[in-house]
Amino acid sequence: MSARTRLDGPARRDQLVEVGLTLARTTPFDQISADGVARLAGVSKGLVFHYFPTTRDLQVAVLRAGIRELMDDLDTDPTATIPERLRSGVEVFMAYIELHPSGYLAMARGAGSDPQLIEVFEETRAEAVAIVQGVLGLDVLPPGLRIAIRAWIAGVEEAVLHWLDGKPIPRDRLVDFLTQVGLTMLPDAASMDVSPRALPHLEA
Amino acid sequence: MSARTRLDGPARRDQLVEVGLTLARTTPFDQISADGVARLAGVSKGLVFHYFPTTRDLQVAVLRAGIRELMDDLDTDPTATIPERLRSGVEVFMAYIELHPSGYLAMARGAGSDPQLIEVFEETRAEAVAIVQGVLGLDVLPPGLRIAIRAWIAGVEEAVLHWLDGKPIPRDRLVDFLTQVGLTMLPDAASMDVSPRALPHLEA
Repeated sequence: MSARTRLDGPARRDQLVEVGLTLARTTPFDQISADGVARLAGVSKGLVFHYFPTTRDLQVAVLRAGIRELMDDLDTDPTATIPERLRSGVEVFMAYIELHPSGYLAMARGAGSDPQLIEVFEETRAEAVAIVQGVLGLDVLPPGLRIAIRAWIAGVEEAVLHWLDGKPIPRDRLVDFLTQVGLTMLPDAASMDVSPRALPHLEA
Repeated sequence: MSARTRLDGPARRDQLVEVGLTLARTTPFDQISADGVARLAGVSKGLVFHYFPTTRDLQVAVLRAGIRELMDDLDTDPTATIPERLRSGVEVFMAYIELHPSGYLAMARGAGSDPQLIEVFEETRAEAVAIVQGVLGLDVLPPGLRIAIRAWIAGVEEAVLHWLDGKPIPRDRLVDFLTQVGLTMLPDAASMDVSPRALPHLEA
């Protein structure tokens, strides 16, 4: 699509976010500017600010769109086995963080101080949990298992962020390990959700 | 110690940090003010700013002191078994986050945007890894195991932060589960550190 094509509101907004995503390949997320997007899109800065009142709004929209792409890629083959689907999710997640380390870090570690980033972080974590829930084939998620899934995702995130610093071990081994951790700890989480009241012999 | 006692430099600084820690029991970490510390310590605001040039410096010093207390409590019985020591660490960590949720969140999730918080976060994570290394009795930490320890700690942190929202399962079950995850995944991490070059039959 030519940058100078006449576009109506939502299509124009989407185009500006797309241009932001292009910039995000080489620019840290929090350094994306309305100016940079306007130049690459061939539109005025005023037009960018029309759709994104502040630079932060623009940055958050770009971050959100990038994470949308990630989420859509996390679980693409519902016919695969659970181990295959978890492994593929870990691989895609790793590739994404590798490609956008600053954006991911800003969201994961910068969320405490920015209400918009907290929102993106919480949405992302909740959606990732829902994807794992889908992989496990569960209609209802007991609270202990939900906590375990969040813990697993946080562990994968931390492992990848730390691994990126020098990549001291082969990628495949880390993927195998993190998948195996999930395959072990998620079934074990059931021990947290069994109610003692359901076991009569435990009652006094 | 009376608040109005005459104190020299380091002792006065320590006293102000202690007062900050008292405030931190009821005040979110990033709302601690020089004014509040001065009032409770019975000194002038100017004196507080003499030791802490900015409010942020004061807040970070208080956060750091709180985390120092946590670190000192994480592994107190070197005669206990590894499972007991890991379990006790999880319990102490959980109790700390429960007592200081806002401070902990500010450090864990706010670190991306504040160089001082990034430093505290990285120091804390590195020291927690060193404590687990000590529990495991290892002089040298292979890179895969280091990544696994960081992942486990991040998982424990996330589990506790999420559990605090409503405490939907009994505390002891979560502690048991998180301990068991560590006891399973840390030995398994060795699979990442075995070099294939050490296995001749894998060479072409």
